[in-house]
Amino acid sequence: MRAEIISIGTEIMLGEIVDTNAAWLAAKLPELGIDLLWVSQVGDNPGRLQEVLARAFERSELTVCTGGLGPTEDDVTREAVAAVLGEPMRVDAVQEAQLRAWFTGRGRPFIERNLKQATLIPSARALPNPRGTAPGWWVEREGRVIVLMPGPPAEMTHMWEAEVDPELARRATSVLVSRTLKTNGLGEGLVDERLSPLLAGTNPSIGIYARRDGVHVRIAAKAPTREEAWRLIAPVEQAARALLSPAVWGEDNDTLPGGVARMLRDRGLTLALMESATGGALADAITSVAGASDYFRGSLVTYATQAKVDLGVAAETVYTHGVISRATAEAMARAARERLGADIGVAITGIAGADELEGQPPGTMHVALADATSVRYHGYAYYQGRDAAKRRAVTEALTLLRTYLVEATAGRE
Amino acid sequence: MRAEIISIGTEIMLGEIVDTNAAWLAAKLPELGIDLLWVSQVGDNPGRLQEVLARAFERSELTVCTGGLGPTEDDVTREAVAAVLGEPMRVDAVQEAQLRAWFTGRGRPFIERNLKQATLIPSARALPNPRGTAPGWWVEREGRVIVLMPGPPAEMTHMWEAEVDPELARRATSVLVSRTLKTNGLGEGLVDERLSPLLAGTNPSIGIYARRDGVHVRIAAKAPTREEAWRLIAPVEQAARALLSPAVWGEDNDTLPGGVARMLRDRGLTLALMESATGGALADAITSVAGASDYFRGSLVTYATQAKVDLGVAAETVYTHGVISRATAEAMARAARERLGADIGVAITGIAGADELEGQPPGTMHVALADATSVRYHGYAYYQGRDAAKRRAVTEALTLLRTYLVEATAGRE
Repeated sequence: MRAEIISIGTEIMLGEIVDTNAAWLAAKLPELGIDLLWVSQVGDNPGRLQEVLARAFERSELTVCTGGLGPTEDDVTREAVAAVLGEPMRVDAVQEAQLRAWFTGRGRPFIERNLKQATLIPSARALPNPRGTAPGWWVEREGRVIVLMPGPPAEMTHMWEAEVDPELARRATSVLVSRTLKTNGLGEGLVDERLSPLLAGTNPSIGIYARRDGVHVRIAAKAPTREEAWRLIAPVEQAARALLSPAVWGEDNDTLPGGVARMLRDRGLTLALMESATGGALADAITSVAGASDYFRGSLVTYATQAKVDLGVAAETVYTHGVISRATAEAMARAARERLGADIGVAITGIAGADELEGQPPGTMHVALADATSVRYHGYAYYQGRDAAKRRAVTEALTLLRTYLVEATAGRE
Repeated sequence: MRAEIISIGTEIMLGEIVDTNAAWLAAKLPELGIDLLWVSQVGDNPGRLQEVLARAFERSELTVCTGGLGPTEDDVTREAVAAVLGEPMRVDAVQEAQLRAWFTGRGRPFIERNLKQATLIPSARALPNPRGTAPGWWVEREGRVIVLMPGPPAEMTHMWEAEVDPELARRATSVLVSRTLKTNGLGEGLVDERLSPLLAGTNPSIGIYARRDGVHVRIAAKAPTREEAWRLIAPVEQAARALLSPAVWGEDNDTLPGGVARMLRDRGLTLALMESATGGALADAITSVAGASDYFRGSLVTYATQAKVDLGVAAETVYTHGVISRATAEAMARAARERLGADIGVAITGIAGADELEGQPPGTMHVALADATSVRYHGYAYYQGRDAAKRRAVTEALTLLRTYLVEATAGRE
């Protein structure tokens, strides 16, 4: 199946936003055995949009559009599709009722101009959008499909997974399925070496990629059905896990916080944090996982030095060794678990800013972990800007925590 | 001048990389008075690439291409341009000498296949690439310009700024200047309605965009000089501010945390937080601003209910009114400022998860602010997923804080 992606929005043409929708969709199509041949972006301009759509309808069996479904005058994607297909737009009673209900449910006034979001053409059926006001369109005519989805990624990705992907999967003649194993602590070369017995195969194929959170191993298989593809992947995945264990911390969409979350839950352990340089970013990462309240007590973001002392770090430690020090980091980790009543305390103190502090360079980070009987420490200095320094410290702290959970609590499951 | 961008590379079509080059270039063109009408991505496929290039050469005065200039067989951008223009490629002696010198200088063997990077066509001159082996092409024929640049962003951006931008600036006959007004609390439709008296104009033009931190209104004017462009913008900006006031919280590159930071510093006030549902995300946002330690004391991320009580929220309040309640949010705000010794306390309690809690729907958020004498509250329920719920709560809390700083402390500067 030949596919085309069209991203619509003047803000894309002005470079105000990066079109991440096209790349996200491009990565989804191979799984459905669909070949993406064309991608284009166009502004909210009726003439140019109609020209792009007409060419797409002529050359592509599947055209996936995002953007231009809003209520404002400059959102013209529906109008352009109707014009290209020469079909009349009319307000659909069901859509209108749902739209009015959406506004009523949120106590917002319903503006008449929102009605355009309830329109359909004869060849189109509506795709529900539980995350916003603009339903999508599934347009099918002359054996060709045009899909319209909203531009906001949260709405688009949900609509794709709930409505579009299942429908395309039903029509797919071959599918590509993949399983990604995420590892930490092994270099790209070492992973390649360990997996060498498996690298000869072509279906499944194995790809090894270095990523910010470690080395990813992608096992991909092509087959007529998902079931058959998974049957090809299973033995290879099993072998790869055996060769890489215990470095595998997650799979597919797992994140480092997610992997740590699973281990904390499995082991029935609770976690507390004390952060300064990361300013809450570590707690933000931990609480990005659903159900974090089962094991996460909280974080004491002690940005001011006095706050560290008030919350359990001995003033003597801070003033003898400095705020940016291993001793303070370890005291913070102990204080966090004691003050918040957790099994494990993790702490970060360091320099996220661009200036030297206490004679230490920007990007200096002291990361510590404490349980009832032991303390672990990891220190480093690496600076690529304020935000990068915070993000990196979060990854390093999560890695320290994960390593502790693997090593110190092995067999506690 | 009508311009078009073409990003070339099969890895883009597979979704393996996001095409950030197109967005980066798109943002540069308006300042040169160049209208970007078309953007497309295409794989390293000679047939499709020639088709896209031929259409671009026909409809666009300027076509900017990135990618496909490497030494390997699947890099075919030069060949495609030569084919479309019907011009012969030949190795250029100067380019070959420079290319060989590049390899010699790095002690690398020169492979014959690299010679294709030293080729030119009669209508092309080479654009130096000090950051890589592939020079760009400036192709000019029949009053039309085609620019070829390498795909790696570090090489492309340097070539653009050193070679392409100056040449285009010399030819520019007009400039585009824009002012963005950032609003909060009004929906996209409502902003559109309020601004309708201004939307008819085309210069300045007005664009309305829904963003995470509210609705942005972009007023853009084109004129021979920046001064004239600003003269066109001034009255429209004034009118827009009047129609939207008091929803406008910032302009251009202002961020909510940045605006709040400026006001806190101006007024000599300090801030402390107590967060649960946002799990540290609010503190993370506050500490994204350099120098936050001047006014930010810290955040008590009391994810566990017991942690709230341990850190100063009366157990009676929590158990009488519930953890997810206005009363608890207000008690948290007071506890934050008292426990961390700040002038202002801001607190968030709510539901970031997908499940109902205490009979309240997902996305329910109670946001409170306390100073020495007063308390402010903002509550709402809106759910688009866990991450979106946290981000939105951060924005709402920053907005509550900003409104307080504007109203309650007016004239304190």
